[in-house]
Amino acid sequence: MQKEGLLIVVSGPSGAGKGTICKRLLEKNPNLGYSISATTRAPRTGEVNGVNYWFLSKEEFQKMIAEDGLLEWAEVYGNYYGTPAQKVRDSLAEGKNILLEIDTQGAALVRKKFPEGVYIYILPPSLEELKRRIIGRGTDSAESIERRLSCAREEMGCASEQYNYLVLNDEVELAVERVETIIEAEQYQIKRNLNLLQAVCGE
Amino acid sequence: MQKEGLLIVVSGPSGAGKGTICKRLLEKNPNLGYSISATTRAPRTGEVNGVNYWFLSKEEFQKMIAEDGLLEWAEVYGNYYGTPAQKVRDSLAEGKNILLEIDTQGAALVRKKFPEGVYIYILPPSLEELKRRIIGRGTDSAESIERRLSCAREEMGCASEQYNYLVLNDEVELAVERVETIIEAEQYQIKRNLNLLQAVCGE
Repeated sequence: MQKEGLLIVVSGPSGAGKGTICKRLLEKNPNLGYSISATTRAPRTGEVNGVNYWFLSKEEFQKMIAEDGLLEWAEVYGNYYGTPAQKVRDSLAEGKNILLEIDTQGAALVRKKFPEGVYIYILPPSLEELKRRIIGRGTDSAESIERRLSCAREEMGCASEQYNYLVLNDEVELAVERVETIIEAEQYQIKRNLNLLQAVCGE
Repeated sequence: MQKEGLLIVVSGPSGAGKGTICKRLLEKNPNLGYSISATTRAPRTGEVNGVNYWFLSKEEFQKMIAEDGLLEWAEVYGNYYGTPAQKVRDSLAEGKNILLEIDTQGAALVRKKFPEGVYIYILPPSLEELKRRIIGRGTDSAESIERRLSCAREEMGCASEQYNYLVLNDEVELAVERVETIIEAEQYQIKRNLNLLQAVCGE
């Protein structure tokens, strides 16, 4: 029987480096699938439907919400963003592992629908380093930086209830290897191998 | 603060190869500790106290039982065998990972005292292969072989409730690597890293 794939949810505070880690994971593991978000915002130059995002109209998006077709969604500055459920479920059923990079609010919503997923929290080495990284991106005002840091501190306090694993991102390549190790080990979880157990003992 | 070590319990049916796997794990990982059993049977030629076993008198062993000083114990053909608790607890407190190779009855008893341990069930590729291995050892009568096989089948049926991981021993070196991956990944479990989380977010 086909073994179901793993849903691997990578989250963490803004600036922890989850985007970089996921990018490397996908480069190194061509068999790993990636959940593409849906959005109602307009495509930017060069963005391709089905690659960067699924670009939907507001009506299409609202229909998905109404039909419970999203694992999570949020409205940000008047635009909707969300994770289409069906594509994730189809890939998992085919035995494909699916990576989902998502903010912590989104991860909490996904966890309610997918408690059997693998929830990984990316931790920056320090709040000071987190601040340096956010400043380094050059996209935030001083006020926004302080808000992000205060959010991060608050989030980290509750991470232990929401996540299975904590991966320190002191160095990207090390953090990527840690996530790879977690993904491999999770595949040996006995609850994911009941068919194998039954096949051997029921001969 | 010192991070606590992991108790790694490797079990499985007789003939699954848990002894060979543990031996290789210890050869490859000199930092991994090993829980030495206590016994009241007489040392065989070449066996050394504190290396092969802790050799105890019946009175000493019964005192340990009375003082709840054993993680598990059993009487086999008039001799006692058991796992001294204090040495395991001391090593874990020092941050050392401890490997415990034990039969499935013993593992079930240890789990009651150490639910936070990592319980790994070694699975032979098939019952037929298990039979070949038991016959190959040349130590069992035909009746004993059938008894072991029927025990193995029964045990496997309940393994999913007692163990966290299932490791297929189709090839020893692969099985050893799977256990190593599990041990590494377990160290990233968020419940084992609350101090790290607190250190970063409480700066």
